[in-house]
Amino acid sequence: MHERDLALKLWKKGFAVIRAPASGSKTRRIVYPDLVAIRNGVILVFEVKTIHEKRPIYIRKQQVEKLKEFLKRSGGHGFIAVKIVGSMDWRFIPLDELEETNGGNYKVSIKRLMSSLKISNLVAITSKNKTLIDYL
Amino acid sequence: MHERDLALKLWKKGFAVIRAPASGSKTRRIVYPDLVAIRNGVILVFEVKTIHEKRPIYIRKQQVEKLKEFLKRSGGHGFIAVKIVGSMDWRFIPLDELEETNGGNYKVSIKRLMSSLKISNLVAITSKNKTLIDYL
Repeated sequence: MHERDLALKLWKKGFAVIRAPASGSKTRRIVYPDLVAIRNGVILVFEVKTIHEKRPIYIRKQQVEKLKEFLKRSGGHGFIAVKIVGSMDWRFIPLDELEETNGGNYKVSIKRLMSSLKISNLVAITSKNKTLIDYL
Repeated sequence: MHERDLALKLWKKGFAVIRAPASGSKTRRIVYPDLVAIRNGVILVFEVKTIHEKRPIYIRKQQVEKLKEFLKRSGGHGFIAVKIVGSMDWRFIPLDELEETNGGNYKVSIKRLMSSLKISNLVAITSKNKTLIDYL
C-alpha cells in the first residue's frame, strides 16, 4: 500500500513510475525492485521501508544485493525509500550511503535518516540541466 | 502470462525488467505500461499484444496515448510487443511505425509485422556503443 502512495506522489511530480507485481508470485527467477521512477532519462530505483517512529533502519544483505543487480543492468541509481507512518514524509537514502553492519547487513542511522533526501530533491536530481553526480 | 514470458526472456539477455502490477487495481490514476526493460541506461517500454495467427493487429488509440504519456515522462522508446501464440517468437514494432486508421486507432500490417524487430535487435539497440538512432 505504501508503494502505491509513493508511486502516486512521484507521478504527480512528473515521473514515469512502475511498481513491481505483487510479491506473492511463485517463480522469482527475475529480481524486481519495489518501484522504479524515471524522469528525463534518469532512472531511480527504490526498495521501500516502513517505520513507525524515528529509529535506525536495518536492511537485509539480500535486499541490497537484489537492488544492486537491477542497478548494474539498468544503469540506474538506487535508494532506500523510507515512509515514517503517521507523517506525510518520504525520505530517500542513496544506496552507497548505507552503513554495513558486522553481520554483513546494512543500516541507516537516525542521524543519516534525518539528513536524507526528500521528494523535492529527487525532482531536482532528475531535472534536465543537472546530473545526479553534480547534485550528490 | 505472456508478459511474464517476455520479462524472463529479456532478463536472460541482461535487461533490468519490471512488469506492471495486475491490471485489476481500481484506482488507475497512474498510467502503467505492460513492461519496461532497461539496459545500459536505454529505456524500452512495451505494450503487449497476443495474436493466434499472422494477421493485422489493431491497437486502440487510448493504449497508444497511455504509452506516449509514459514515454514523454521517462525519455524511453516505445514498442508494441507481439507474441504469436504457438511460435516461440516475439516481434517488436516501434511506436512511431504504427499506421493510423481512419477511426483514429492504430494498426500494424502483416507486412510490417514480418519485418519487425526481434529480441536480438533489442539487445543490439541497447548495447553500449550503439544508439537507438543509429540503429533505426
